[in-house]
Amino acid sequence: MQFELTKPFLDELNLAVESKNEAAVLALIEHLRPVDIAEIINEQSLKEAIAFYQFLTEEQAADVLIELDEDVRERFLNSLSSKQIAKQFIDNMDSDDAADLLAKLPVEKKNEVISHIQDIEQASDIIDLLNYPEDTAGGLMAKELVKVDINWDIKTCINELRRQTQEVENVYTVYVVDDRNVLQGIISLKRLLLTPDNKKVRDIYNDKVIAVKADLNDEEVGQIMEKYDLVVVPVIDEIGRLLGRITIDDIVDVIKEEAEKDYQLASGISENVEYSDNMWLQTRARLPWLLVGLMGGIISSKIIGTYESQIQINPEMAFFIPLIAAMGGNVGVQSSALVVKGLANKSLGLNGIWHKILKEILIGLTNGLVCSGLILLYNVLFPDTGGINWAISITVSIALLSVIFFAGIFGTVIPLMLHKYKVDPALATGPFITTTNDIFGTFLYFYIGHLLYAVF
Amino acid sequence: MQFELTKPFLDELNLAVESKNEAAVLALIEHLRPVDIAEIINEQSLKEAIAFYQFLTEEQAADVLIELDEDVRERFLNSLSSKQIAKQFIDNMDSDDAADLLAKLPVEKKNEVISHIQDIEQASDIIDLLNYPEDTAGGLMAKELVKVDINWDIKTCINELRRQTQEVENVYTVYVVDDRNVLQGIISLKRLLLTPDNKKVRDIYNDKVIAVKADLNDEEVGQIMEKYDLVVVPVIDEIGRLLGRITIDDIVDVIKEEAEKDYQLASGISENVEYSDNMWLQTRARLPWLLVGLMGGIISSKIIGTYESQIQINPEMAFFIPLIAAMGGNVGVQSSALVVKGLANKSLGLNGIWHKILKEILIGLTNGLVCSGLILLYNVLFPDTGGINWAISITVSIALLSVIFFAGIFGTVIPLMLHKYKVDPALATGPFITTTNDIFGTFLYFYIGHLLYAVF
Repeated sequence: MQFELTKPFLDELNLAVESKNEAAVLALIEHLRPVDIAEIINEQSLKEAIAFYQFLTEEQAADVLIELDEDVRERFLNSLSSKQIAKQFIDNMDSDDAADLLAKLPVEKKNEVISHIQDIEQASDIIDLLNYPEDTAGGLMAKELVKVDINWDIKTCINELRRQTQEVENVYTVYVVDDRNVLQGIISLKRLLLTPDNKKVRDIYNDKVIAVKADLNDEEVGQIMEKYDLVVVPVIDEIGRLLGRITIDDIVDVIKEEAEKDYQLASGISENVEYSDNMWLQTRARLPWLLVGLMGGIISSKIIGTYESQIQINPEMAFFIPLIAAMGGNVGVQSSALVVKGLANKSLGLNGIWHKILKEILIGLTNGLVCSGLILLYNVLFPDTGGINWAISITVSIALLSVIFFAGIFGTVIPLMLHKYKVDPALATGPFITTTNDIFGTFLYFYIGHLLYAVF
Repeated sequence: MQFELTKPFLDELNLAVESKNEAAVLALIEHLRPVDIAEIINEQSLKEAIAFYQFLTEEQAADVLIELDEDVRERFLNSLSSKQIAKQFIDNMDSDDAADLLAKLPVEKKNEVISHIQDIEQASDIIDLLNYPEDTAGGLMAKELVKVDINWDIKTCINELRRQTQEVENVYTVYVVDDRNVLQGIISLKRLLLTPDNKKVRDIYNDKVIAVKADLNDEEVGQIMEKYDLVVVPVIDEIGRLLGRITIDDIVDVIKEEAEKDYQLASGISENVEYSDNMWLQTRARLPWLLVGLMGGIISSKIIGTYESQIQINPEMAFFIPLIAAMGGNVGVQSSALVVKGLANKSLGLNGIWHKILKEILIGLTNGLVCSGLILLYNVLFPDTGGINWAISITVSIALLSVIFFAGIFGTVIPLMLHKYKVDPALATGPFITTTNDIFGTFLYFYIGHLLYAVF
């Protein structure tokens, strides 16, 4: 049901394109949707793509262009003149897609393309949309919508709708405005169908409508649409005038990226890179976090260095360094991930920070007691030759308990603090928390060992 | 614009509810939507919630119930009789919500509730839906939809729609079926509005419709709706008969959970727990991964143990254990996260596994050379008292380069292999890859040290 691009398919298509066999090309892409065709072009060379594009209808070509990977699209547009871009693509696009496309072009080319747009109204819509930052409600909205005046009767509405809907692909909802274009409410097509012609909009419209202001950032738009199960949301200006609408398909990506961004940060990848991005982009996104780890490792080496003489006497102290460091990292990652997810979903509840710390303390104590108990059991049941070494056994268990205990608290408190001071709490997951807990764990382990070996 | 629940608001509401001050309660919740009211109830005690529920209208009560946290809803329903559940809630719900609700009840209570449903048609829809597993298209769909016969004319359609739409809250799309109820295509309300009465459906409907089979799993439904920007998708049986439809609001949660699930696994949390879940659930989700780390730590301790005598002679070998272990873990997490995300987004491209490994080798070499160069510089510029220790300096640098190199390859190959053998590749992120790389890194470091110290 879903198209799955394969290498043989791509080869067959490229061959048909190269030999200009139109019938074969059209047969291959007959059942494909624009996003499927975009998948193909993402895998083609620029030359293959340009040749293939000749076989698409104008409308297809515009729809496919929107779905292309950004870098592929950029290369492709660079191969076209401004006039071609305006005529072949912009004229067939919704205002929001056209604005997104133009926003990515160099200023000069952008202005050139705009000057070539035939439809004055569309050009003015696009110029309007280009004024809004990309990551706000204004930057996401489309100007195409269907609206009626609150003072009209149903008959006038239906006639007006017949006119307006020719330009709007999916209607979803009809907006109700007053004579100053201030949003008053909504009315569904269904309701219009069911109501007698002579009734007034005023009597049947629904005045409970959720709208977003044009300067609201896209993540909050996503949260609102998700929370209130909205398929489309109207965008208004400061005094409530209707500017446009955002549909769910534009916001699903925002919601998903939001969820993925936290994962990416937790994995120590600082920029929004994809696996398919080139080596250099990937390196740039990954190296900074490795340097954080490197710094952490150097600090740990300094801490252990101060216990050099003890290691010489009790080399077994070195055996459990990876265990202590790893467990601190694991616990920290777990707690911080739960807090960050809770913050993102607004599901942390109303209880204060002390309640959260108390909960983490109880979880830490449980996990800590289980793990330190098990490692004690291991050290007692499987001693090295020379019998049970109580000093190291007890040192490891106490250090492990302490590390699990404190790592959980750090993992809870640090993201909460960052959030309080408006820093992205996801920064506190991944390499940052792992490194901190590595250092702290190493210090604790050797300090406890130092004390205990003096006793035994 | 968005409701934000605060402690003072909750206290005020509880006070008004307790003192049975209806005017005050209704004023407080006047502008709230069902999901907002659900947020309030999630924070109330059962007694407060039951008292508060008396103030809601029947329709509100049903809408709020669907939005409640699962455990809160369960407690709440347990306090009601089967008859009350059927009359107060099920009768006011869409079939899919009603079925979801009933699916969570104990079998006996479920059957009791069904026997109390007044509307026979709704009862039969619900029984039907309960047959589909929860995580399939059939389990997600609602039975309420609007459909027309392909042989009708537009006038008949509109009359029929007037009848059908009374039961369907949001129409979105009108489905076109033949006389055996086999899905033929769709027609938009807008199109119906624009077409003269005497035309036939057959002449104007759109036969390019994406449908999903009832047994398709929910994640794939989500991928299809996301990829093709669908707001609603029809569900069909094996021979193409129209069974129901899935709307985007039911699938946004699936798409989001899918993105979050990978993050959760990468953070070493095995079940779908939330921060707000109780201590016991959290411990159960976290402890297993800690035990994986514990096992890894024990294995590392065995490896280091075999080099005991060397540590006694060269205690500085111990200093850099955390560095090597941490860097292996960090690199592994980075690579595996990128591969897992690429697999989830189907954006890995068509190139084979060797191409992927080659790319990771190049990234690993770059990052590895930078990091090992820096640590060499550090060890040379800031030697311990006694001058530059070339043996340890070169050991650390070579080990670091090797660990970064191999950790990247493991992080790439292991999730790809798991995916190939139909195991969730996200299992290879987080504690699993960290632990493996800890062990491997420790081994490599001491082995290289052992060889090099013999040379210097």
